[in-house]
Amino acid sequence: MAKVYVFLADGLEEVETVTPIDVLRRAGNEVITVSTMGRKWIRGSHKIYLEADRMLQEVKCEDGDLYVLPGGGEGTKNLGACRELTQILQAAYISGKHIAAICAAPSIFGKLGFLESRRATVYPGMENTLTGASYQDVPVVTDDNVTTGHGPGAAFDFALELVRIMNGADTAVQLKKQMVFQHDTIV
Amino acid sequence: MAKVYVFLADGLEEVETVTPIDVLRRAGNEVITVSTMGRKWIRGSHKIYLEADRMLQEVKCEDGDLYVLPGGGEGTKNLGACRELTQILQAAYISGKHIAAICAAPSIFGKLGFLESRRATVYPGMENTLTGASYQDVPVVTDDNVTTGHGPGAAFDFALELVRIMNGADTAVQLKKQMVFQHDTIV
Repeated sequence: MAKVYVFLADGLEEVETVTPIDVLRRAGNEVITVSTMGRKWIRGSHKIYLEADRMLQEVKCEDGDLYVLPGGGEGTKNLGACRELTQILQAAYISGKHIAAICAAPSIFGKLGFLESRRATVYPGMENTLTGASYQDVPVVTDDNVTTGHGPGAAFDFALELVRIMNGADTAVQLKKQMVFQHDTIV
Repeated sequence: MAKVYVFLADGLEEVETVTPIDVLRRAGNEVITVSTMGRKWIRGSHKIYLEADRMLQEVKCEDGDLYVLPGGGEGTKNLGACRELTQILQAAYISGKHIAAICAAPSIFGKLGFLESRRATVYPGMENTLTGASYQDVPVVTDDNVTTGHGPGAAFDFALELVRIMNGADTAVQLKKQMVFQHDTIV
């Protein structure tokens, strides 16, 4: 069982947020959603309101195995502007923890220098934000300890890939079947 | 632009709830989430809390073009036990409005007699709840004014199918591309 932090900000893309939380919890992981907004209620980019489990001020986030950033244009801007969060991500990345971002959010990894000489994906049109990376036009890419996802339509692939990494391919395949995802994926 | 009611109850499956709301709002529809619990905050089956736009007591729901039920075992039980909701669904169905349910929730349609002589799908293992229907092992099925979806892994197919019905195939195809869903679907 892994400990997973998912960071939330106003303007997040709801499908990209809820799908990894749901799928990672189904696999038995401890998933903690953390608000970077100084309040628990978060407004999604399609006006769906979600409650975070904790606020960034309350948790140290040092003990995670996996750190996840959902996308959304405004959500990514808010996450990227949160100094405490970028410090947490830098510490996690340096110590070899797994980090993951989807849609617009891989641009935060690009800016922090995490993607140099890596394969990565991002929302189409934002390829130049993946500083130093080789862009891949696929739903999800893992390069060492960095996983990136394409967009909301890749949320399921992204979530299953994170389960594969944290819990093994058997669990990912089992969940894919249990959740009736009848499409080709990498797992 | 269509008017869409999505009904929420404790124990709903979060991916099945958020994906249709998100995708239908992207297509420009007016989507109103309605709590059947007598309070605005709803607990999902994977402990994600969502806020409904309105409470069932506040809205008549007579003017909808589309009525959507997300699944989840406990969520479906709660929705099915809500007398006001089943009355709304009966009125909608009789007047030829479009109704849709995913995962366990098509069982509510089965119980209400909406699936007699129809093709329909439901979460695997619940086939016998589709009273009178011919079960289809596919992500999503539309038969006249009734759409049913398979499970959380079919949420995207289900949402795109509802956009196709409400907004046309061109909009559905465009959204599929815009949301980077790189899998085969019926649209």
